[in-house]
Amino acid sequence: MLQAQKFLAPGIAALALTIASPALAQEAAAAAPAANPAFLFNTLLFLIGGILVVWMAAGFAMLEAGMVQSKNVSMQCTKNIALYSIAGLMFWLVGYNVMYSGVDGGYIGTFWPKEIPVPEKDSGDYATGSDWFFQMAFCATAASIVSGTLAERIKLWPFLIFVAILCGVIYPIVGAWTWGEGFLNKLGFLDFAGSSIVHSTGGWAALAGAIILGTRRAKYHDGVITPLPGSNMPLATLGTFILWLGWFGFNGASQLAFATNVDASAVSNIFVNTNLAAAAGVVIAITLSQLMYGKVDLTFALNGALAGLVAITAEPLTPSPTWAIAIGAVGGAIVVFTVPMLDKLRIDDVVGAIPVHLFAGIWGTMAVPLTNSGANFTAQAIGVGAIGAMVFTVSLAIWIVLRFTVGIRCTPEQELKGLDVSEIGLEAYPEFK
Amino acid sequence: MLQAQKFLAPGIAALALTIASPALAQEAAAAAPAANPAFLFNTLLFLIGGILVVWMAAGFAMLEAGMVQSKNVSMQCTKNIALYSIAGLMFWLVGYNVMYSGVDGGYIGTFWPKEIPVPEKDSGDYATGSDWFFQMAFCATAASIVSGTLAERIKLWPFLIFVAILCGVIYPIVGAWTWGEGFLNKLGFLDFAGSSIVHSTGGWAALAGAIILGTRRAKYHDGVITPLPGSNMPLATLGTFILWLGWFGFNGASQLAFATNVDASAVSNIFVNTNLAAAAGVVIAITLSQLMYGKVDLTFALNGALAGLVAITAEPLTPSPTWAIAIGAVGGAIVVFTVPMLDKLRIDDVVGAIPVHLFAGIWGTMAVPLTNSGANFTAQAIGVGAIGAMVFTVSLAIWIVLRFTVGIRCTPEQELKGLDVSEIGLEAYPEFK
Amino acid sequence: MLQAQKFLAPGIAALALTIASPALAQEAAAAAPAANPAFLFNTLLFLIGGILVVWMAAGFAMLEAGMVQSKNVSMQCTKNIALYSIAGLMFWLVGYNVMYSGVDGGYIGTFWPKEIPVPEKDSGDYATGSDWFFQMAFCATAASIVSGTLAERIKLWPFLIFVAILCGVIYPIVGAWTWGEGFLNKLGFLDFAGSSIVHSTGGWAALAGAIILGTRRAKYHDGVITPLPGSNMPLATLGTFILWLGWFGFNGASQLAFATNVDASAVSNIFVNTNLAAAAGVVIAITLSQLMYGKVDLTFALNGALAGLVAITAEPLTPSPTWAIAIGAVGGAIVVFTVPMLDKLRIDDVVGAIPVHLFAGIWGTMAVPLTNSGANFTAQAIGVGAIGAMVFTVSLAIWIVLRFTVGIRCTPEQELKGLDVSEIGLEAYPEFK
Repeated sequence: MLQAQKFLAPGIAALALTIASPALAQEAAAAAPAANPAFLFNTLLFLIGGILVVWMAAGFAMLEAGMVQSKNVSMQCTKNIALYSIAGLMFWLVGYNVMYSGVDGGYIGTFWPKEIPVPEKDSGDYATGSDWFFQMAFCATAASIVSGTLAERIKLWPFLIFVAILCGVIYPIVGAWTWGEGFLNKLGFLDFAGSSIVHSTGGWAALAGAIILGTRRAKYHDGVITPLPGSNMPLATLGTFILWLGWFGFNGASQLAFATNVDASAVSNIFVNTNLAAAAGVVIAITLSQLMYGKVDLTFALNGALAGLVAITAEPLTPSPTWAIAIGAVGGAIVVFTVPMLDKLRIDDVVGAIPVHLFAGIWGTMAVPLTNSGANFTAQAIGVGAIGAMVFTVSLAIWIVLRFTVGIRCTPEQELKGLDVSEIGLEAYPEFK
Repeated sequence: MLQAQKFLAPGIAALALTIASPALAQEAAAAAPAANPAFLFNTLLFLIGGILVVWMAAGFAMLEAGMVQSKNVSMQCTKNIALYSIAGLMFWLVGYNVMYSGVDGGYIGTFWPKEIPVPEKDSGDYATGSDWFFQMAFCATAASIVSGTLAERIKLWPFLIFVAILCGVIYPIVGAWTWGEGFLNKLGFLDFAGSSIVHSTGGWAALAGAIILGTRRAKYHDGVITPLPGSNMPLATLGTFILWLGWFGFNGASQLAFATNVDASAVSNIFVNTNLAAAAGVVIAITLSQLMYGKVDLTFALNGALAGLVAITAEPLTPSPTWAIAIGAVGGAIVVFTVPMLDKLRIDDVVGAIPVHLFAGIWGTMAVPLTNSGANFTAQAIGVGAIGAMVFTVSLAIWIVLRFTVGIRCTPEQELKGLDVSEIGLEAYPEFK
Repeated sequence: MLQAQKFLAPGIAALALTIASPALAQEAAAAAPAANPAFLFNTLLFLIGGILVVWMAAGFAMLEAGMVQSKNVSMQCTKNIALYSIAGLMFWLVGYNVMYSGVDGGYIGTFWPKEIPVPEKDSGDYATGSDWFFQMAFCATAASIVSGTLAERIKLWPFLIFVAILCGVIYPIVGAWTWGEGFLNKLGFLDFAGSSIVHSTGGWAALAGAIILGTRRAKYHDGVITPLPGSNMPLATLGTFILWLGWFGFNGASQLAFATNVDASAVSNIFVNTNLAAAAGVVIAITLSQLMYGKVDLTFALNGALAGLVAITAEPLTPSPTWAIAIGAVGGAIVVFTVPMLDKLRIDDVVGAIPVHLFAGIWGTMAVPLTNSGANFTAQAIGVGAIGAMVFTVSLAIWIVLRFTVGIRCTPEQELKGLDVSEIGLEAYPEFK
């Protein structure tokens, strides 16, 4: 019983004592360290969820490393580990504060981080550090999306400057509008884990970048589109599996609590729906690619999974499994139909991130009212439009400024030889040619 | 104290109040959301365990992608992400219901999924969704095993049809016999986490497929066996490490509860035994391959780990660490001796899945009585025999039907050029030749 | 309420009952299985933390497989899965017992493992098996470090003999000095998660090995240093991401408890600091490599992350985030400056493990007093010196004995052709040349 007493006092013992003797209870509470199971379970949810979302950074890195040509793989690896690092630093320096205090008169906040309290002073329903960790990982996800679209022709440092602004300011402002209890939240806009707030934000920023940056020279020339196949398909597959796994944390821990049976059951149902939506995305994508092209395209299978995941992210809790399958399936279909569309529009998205994160993200956000009676299409449309207008125009402006100051694009010679040689000085596979 | 009160009512406060005043307790229980630590811990076990077993799907994908020739790698990736998706959909549509209600008069059940209850109505010792998620991942594992054996010559869609039947019907019926409290359970057959129920089931289905499908043309011709080495050993190694990691969830969470000290301690001991059995499998496999062939064969090391893991799966709790090492070591030895045996029998198992999952699975199942006094060899043998007879004959019938209807095997030309070009339209490593 | 009663008795109900009726409470405690939330939370921390640290074995395997030439990749994979296996077996057979009982009169202990108690007899604040699992994974980490430095020229079996001694004796003795409450602990030496105890131990053993083993012939000849670039950069990047992820378990679970709000908050802050230190290591490393060499070196980025992680490991709890960033940044800078230094000294460290684990480990250990008022520079310096002196001299002796008995180095022909052909009999990428 000794251990039980150590733990249960004062949370539980005090409560029991309250009934027996209020005075004794106060004394017990003062004497022993607090052990509140709700605090522990909630914190655990954020930590485990955060680990899974951090793992998504590796998923994006592998997906992109597999989808680019071998001459640009070291660059893509460098970009991904650097962007995850910068995301963390900027979200500590500025982002977290902007996102969660921005609603109090102006979005910019104090430009200095909310302090992570020392353990002895950490009050609330969960450890502040665990929440920071979880939210930081979301911020990094938005940046990862941009990296894939702009691959094979963007210079490293201008890209990293954009990442710093995206993670420090743009994403946190968007987040503040809903999750920081800003105006979209007041309007009734619902986006459970961020189909729009995270994924479309990344997608809009990528779209703006792709327009300003232009297409890869080898892909579009003389009116002909030459496919530039990815150099390592099992790596891209691994990246997709990693992202799928990480998404259980992304959506599941966005329940933000694991302290009651209802919370735990909600997290569990989110896991079920998240998995079924991704599975449906895969099955639809391979079926459609078989029917339309006579062969199954692995990249459609991978992006189908991801589009299903993005689509269910705006509302992974209220759909029945059947609804989750339908929402994910539409996501998968969106990929198959919009990837060629972007090609026709001469928007060069190396990994298909715009269809997956932007288009499927919009679909998922607009689908929320189908299963959640607390949502309405108007508010959802306003949210999609407001986030799109802000992120796209601000990103466009930043990309233009970067283009006409430091420059964002490598030279044609560098593009031909590959960025690994010109900027990283290290080939990805020096022996395999 | 506010948080504590929020959480502790009604589970704990009510209990305390019961003593002080039964009427007050009832009121408290009705007013606040339920927060039952047992429910939360059990659900957490299923969710974390499920994530780890889902991760095994990535492990099989990487293992197989590394063990096949480069011309079939995209196919193998496609098969693995598709089979995991189909497993999830079928286990939702049919499997879960068959497996856990089949014991009530007939194994086919209602052919419609048990509903995942909405969180507010989720009663029981754990969230239903978390259990579905965990069991779904097991179902996918059985399908993954088949994929490896039949690589490099099977057509995509017939394989996926087989997977749908395996996951929707065959595996759930086998599961129902023991875990659904069917006749094997009543006989006293014990298979803690599924050496036979999951791994041998996959192995028998693979064996039936290998017999009907035939061998790869390049491997066996004119009476000569030509080894066809895998194209990417670090990928196969990564896959093995992923599987090893996932196995802690596979075996550990099969304790099915984390609500008492005894449960938590049991899960911990399962972790220890699982790790030691795998380690012993590796050491025996590399030692034997050194002694027998004068060199250490990495694929034996990898399959030795997996065979150790499969062997300990039938009973990871009752063995002492010394016993766990012995059980795993025998598993590793089985791999070294039976891989060449299959070659002689002209059964073409590309990744060695039959030795690892079927042979080591039988060994593990028969070894249960060595450490668990509640088991007996007769019941274990009946279980092994019943599962083998059913899975092998039903699988054989399905493979034969598929062979003579849609056809299961690619043409000799396709086999020579590789399935990536013929069916996927996408090479895995287009630049490395 | 039934579930609640099942779970809460006797831990909580008994406590409540104590107040109402001590006699009833005793009866309840005797009747129901113990369910102590502290025991469950602590055990969960060790199990999750252990899984993450086990995952680091895969991280080292991928990092090293990516950093060596393709002709030595299968060897590196074999070494890594074998060393992890041997570490587990030796830590069971000898290490755990030496490490935690060594303080009672002599470090050698009984040379037989502390028994892992059966669940019904597992008393204490956590399950013994979960602690063994967690500590075993640490032991394996120390061995992984050695593997990277000595790559591309060491023979397999002598390396594995060294690993067995390192994991069974050397590391546990070092651990016993501090974590086993030995003399360094009594002196006030602080090393929270093992910057010195784990990482520098691995680094010293690697340094001794590199000196006795000599340099690769192709790298240093005729006074010229020829870089031998790694064969697979995305694999090395994946390995780094895996290690980064695993480090949350390495540092976070080294809090050793998750039973109170203060513990949970501490673990959370450790996560924040661990992440920021790694991020700072990356940013410093890429910035310095850009400034010094005109290009960004991906291997510096990867090793910068790892050096940041190693540096924060000695004290991840007391630093503010700003301090964590500073400590990690210095770690990253150490890598950039000391990698070339080792080259000049003709110490051939294939993956840069000595700068990362030894030099950054010493830095992290000496930095503890900067933020932890309970530490002092003298004790830290004594710890660094004692561990270094013991591990280096004992390792040196073992390497010398191995060199002059079984021999540790492959022949020049084997080195030229690669160890995969000579010792493993299996090429890593047989089709890519």
